[in-house]
Amino acid sequence: MTQATNDQFLLAARPVGMPKDSDWQRATPALAELADGEVRVKILYISLDPAMRGWMNDARSYVRPVAIGEVMRAGGVGVVVESKSPKFAVGAHVMGVMGVQRYWQGPAEDKGAMLAQVDPAIAPLPAWLNALGMPGMTAYFGLIEVGQPKAGETVVVSGAAGAVGMTVGQVAKHLGCRVVGIAGGEDKCRFVVEELGFDACIDYKAGPVHAGLKQHCPQGVDVYFDNVGGEILDAVLTRINMKARIVICGAISQYNATEAVKGPANYLALLVNRARMEGMLVTDYAARYPEGVATLARWMKEGSFKNREHIVEGFETFPSTLNMLFKGENLGKLVLKVADA
Amino acid sequence: MTQATNDQFLLAARPVGMPKDSDWQRATPALAELADGEVRVKILYISLDPAMRGWMNDARSYVRPVAIGEVMRAGGVGVVVESKSPKFAVGAHVMGVMGVQRYWQGPAEDKGAMLAQVDPAIAPLPAWLNALGMPGMTAYFGLIEVGQPKAGETVVVSGAAGAVGMTVGQVAKHLGCRVVGIAGGEDKCRFVVEELGFDACIDYKAGPVHAGLKQHCPQGVDVYFDNVGGEILDAVLTRINMKARIVICGAISQYNATEAVKGPANYLALLVNRARMEGMLVTDYAARYPEGVATLARWMKEGSFKNREHIVEGFETFPSTLNMLFKGENLGKLVLKVADA
Repeated sequence: MTQATNDQFLLAARPVGMPKDSDWQRATPALAELADGEVRVKILYISLDPAMRGWMNDARSYVRPVAIGEVMRAGGVGVVVESKSPKFAVGAHVMGVMGVQRYWQGPAEDKGAMLAQVDPAIAPLPAWLNALGMPGMTAYFGLIEVGQPKAGETVVVSGAAGAVGMTVGQVAKHLGCRVVGIAGGEDKCRFVVEELGFDACIDYKAGPVHAGLKQHCPQGVDVYFDNVGGEILDAVLTRINMKARIVICGAISQYNATEAVKGPANYLALLVNRARMEGMLVTDYAARYPEGVATLARWMKEGSFKNREHIVEGFETFPSTLNMLFKGENLGKLVLKVADA
Repeated sequence: MTQATNDQFLLAARPVGMPKDSDWQRATPALAELADGEVRVKILYISLDPAMRGWMNDARSYVRPVAIGEVMRAGGVGVVVESKSPKFAVGAHVMGVMGVQRYWQGPAEDKGAMLAQVDPAIAPLPAWLNALGMPGMTAYFGLIEVGQPKAGETVVVSGAAGAVGMTVGQVAKHLGCRVVGIAGGEDKCRFVVEELGFDACIDYKAGPVHAGLKQHCPQGVDVYFDNVGGEILDAVLTRINMKARIVICGAISQYNATEAVKGPANYLALLVNRARMEGMLVTDYAARYPEGVATLARWMKEGSFKNREHIVEGFETFPSTLNMLFKGENLGKLVLKVADA
């Protein structure tokens, strides 16, 4: 039954700018026998997230960098195919930080992998890497706890058609806010307005964001959930209201920068408007994930919340599929399908 | 008794970069008879503050710009020399936004001037433009309400030998914090450590701020009160702790910039550290000034809080004296002495 070897993508070199094929190395080590308390998970879907780019740099951050020669870190969802732990039975579906590989194995209680069982009856497996996983929890707690939107306020979110942005906007609509997305391209903008129910979406590729904000946020911006940084952050800063809150969740526009990161030149708008810019990290809310999952799952069941995954098949496509994120080529949560259930 | 004419500095042109003499125009209009409810104040000291540079620009901000041909806006303290209002008797000392002129006159209840009586028995008149005035209130409420320092935390303040910075550091010491100033030059650094009791001061002209922070903030930075922006803000961002709070009070390094303002390139430290950057404006705390004044006045009386004004004499020196702020030539609160009491 057991396949004798694994298949992995290791980080071979620290990328300069956009990751290249030569920054990766394939490895096919033999799979060891399970020890007591361990499980083997056959990975079905791998989550591809902008944060992965940061983990590839040798920089002090909220998690240690992936080491050269180490399996690339990534979230995933899979099925337990062997178990010497009472925690997970064979056939159980689990999510966790399992890396870019076909199999994960180790202690069921592993602190790094943080395996947790998921129920495919609540939502299809890829949704557990999306709204019911890290991106969804990031959006839910970042918006509610750091953004603190009130009904009637205007919420703007960049990366609106990405995993986090999709959920931010839909949660904000549930809270009674006016929601304006920012995304690149007509298809994405149409998707977030027509499919997800955003009030408007600004196509940053079609014209200046500033003009779009003026048109679609006539009452100014109360909450800005920023996934992209760069010029879009600067444009939004010119339109914020008194006591506005800017949630710094990411800065995908800057992750592959080979020059210095572009700081927000308009940050003094914070002073003029007594506004706030605050960073958030999803793991700070780990104890409250059940609350977030329950709320989003309920809305999904009611039909008032939509998931969308952009699924690419084929483990071997990992290097180019990851780069789709940085090229803005995904519409919805980018997921790599590795195997059939 | 009454002098028949006033003497004023009007804004003649919007400065590009550092204000020039030609950006000002002198005027000596006749003083009108007082109407009922009005007072005439002989201005004794004029407050020179970094914010004045912003008021000279034609830009949307927290107050309207000074118009071309209008008396330059400034705080001041003076003595009532004529009164047709029961609110202020002749001989009363008042502070308010009275402009760069020798006399202010108008309704005692004027909303723009916001006259308030001050008691020279509590502190000498210039102190009412310093710790007991706008800079002191800015420091006190900005630090306590936005910075929220806790005993044992490390507080860093830039512009440490300026009006706001001096008070920020001394209040933080009263709260039991480790206090590290940043200032330009040995004299200023010696002053804040030896006279004001800061734990250390980094001379940004003597070497890289980053190295100074490493040396003097071994536990990292919990609160940064920023008066200067630019490269110093960026350096501090690399040393902030988890959940750090950055109070954006000003950015004097950028006020005369003729290129775009330099945004903080290291702002993603907010994300990594789940930290916050927030603007503050003193007038939001107007209702609580009595609390701030009472606290600082008590400390001054006890000898545990020191004021320092840098007083320059001569109304006609206004243009060059104002520029001392932007050249970092003042040590303590910069005040223009206009007349003897």
